[in-house]
Amino acid sequence: MEYQPIAYIHNDFPTKFGLPRQSGLSEHLISQIVMEKEYRNPDAFRGIEEFEYLWLIWCFEPMGKRASSENNSAKHASSMRAWSPTVRPPKLGGNKRMGVFATRSPNRPNPIGLTRVKLVRTELTGDRGLVLTVAGADLMDGTAILDIKPYLPYADSVPDAATGDYGPEHQQIMDVAIPDDVAALFSEEQLKTLKEVLSFDPRPGYQHDPDRVYGFAYGGYDVRFKADDHTVTVMEAVNLE
Amino acid sequence: MEYQPIAYIHNDFPTKFGLPRQSGLSEHLISQIVMEKEYRNPDAFRGIEEFEYLWLIWCFEPMGKRASSENNSAKHASSMRAWSPTVRPPKLGGNKRMGVFATRSPNRPNPIGLTRVKLVRTELTGDRGLVLTVAGADLMDGTAILDIKPYLPYADSVPDAATGDYGPEHQQIMDVAIPDDVAALFSEEQLKTLKEVLSFDPRPGYQHDPDRVYGFAYGGYDVRFKADDHTVTVMEAVNLE
Repeated sequence: MEYQPIAYIHNDFPTKFGLPRQSGLSEHLISQIVMEKEYRNPDAFRGIEEFEYLWLIWCFEPMGKRASSENNSAKHASSMRAWSPTVRPPKLGGNKRMGVFATRSPNRPNPIGLTRVKLVRTELTGDRGLVLTVAGADLMDGTAILDIKPYLPYADSVPDAATGDYGPEHQQIMDVAIPDDVAALFSEEQLKTLKEVLSFDPRPGYQHDPDRVYGFAYGGYDVRFKADDHTVTVMEAVNLE
Repeated sequence: MEYQPIAYIHNDFPTKFGLPRQSGLSEHLISQIVMEKEYRNPDAFRGIEEFEYLWLIWCFEPMGKRASSENNSAKHASSMRAWSPTVRPPKLGGNKRMGVFATRSPNRPNPIGLTRVKLVRTELTGDRGLVLTVAGADLMDGTAILDIKPYLPYADSVPDAATGDYGPEHQQIMDVAIPDDVAALFSEEQLKTLKEVLSFDPRPGYQHDPDRVYGFAYGGYDVRFKADDHTVTVMEAVNLE
């Protein structure tokens, strides 16, 4: 079955590193969903404001626009995608092997992601049609969206579902220190997002060297930080442009 | 992007009519997920028992096995699927037009469905590898599964999310009457499922003629029923074989 992008995500994260590992953790992480031309009809979204949350179904792999996507699809149709039966989730310390279907790892047979986002607003623009602004997406800039569905609590929500090692107690919340000169580079909203994503400790779970400097791209800067057991400290932000 | 079925659903519902309109409503509706050959490695499911619920991402359209799927995909790649910007959800009485992205309607650009199911058990079989038994799927027999992901409450669950007209108060629960001779045709488990799905009133929201007889296929029988405002009454069950 051939699936086509219906929209692309736009936000301040050009790469995956630094993004929260699951959706919904970062309420300040704002993204815009810009529909592809054939889906810019505002009628397709009639009533969507009645819903507070949406599901995004998206593609883990870069997807070009239509023409190149058709070339890719021919390639994919003839040979199955590489996948691994087991993966080692970074947040479990990288030691525990889990079956890929017991994880949300991107390394799976069909590169389909599932993310719950908060609908912040809809806006009818002149050139890009109806644009959705959403909060909490764990998607990097340019991610292709395959579907948008309303969130229905009675069908979708199970607050107490058992999850083994994946409970919220395993989502460490760190203190975050950002020097003033770095803070001055970002808008107030960007700064909130930055603090939030750093509080989730973007380091892989098996790396604990407090002297190692990590970096990720955010809003046009390479944000460099260290972390000990309790605090993420931003060192500098280097302009990428 | 070309997506391939990783598994197919097996249950007692050969057609869509009669199935609950959303997942999770029918806790007795049992389905088995039988993996395609290349995914029968039990390692791919290691640790899945730690999770109480799973997400199924599936395809609204019939998908054949690999060979025919490739033919279909060529067709789909060259022409976009028919879709409609607005739909009239049956449960809203068929009068209110909603944008397709504000509904879970199957009539959408990419035929992707999303269903939350309870994991009942996993079983290693000789001929079909690891088979998952799940409860609450709103999928008909033979539906192609594209992905299986664990349910993570902290990322996925928002019990109080606003939903306009789609709240649980709009899920009418009917009394159900099944005569003994019909009940005798089904197993105890099938009978529970049958009562449950009938309690959701499978009729379209805009049809209220108490004398009209409806039928749907379940477990090899055409189950025929009438309904008034409070009660669904099964008339007979006709063997389909």
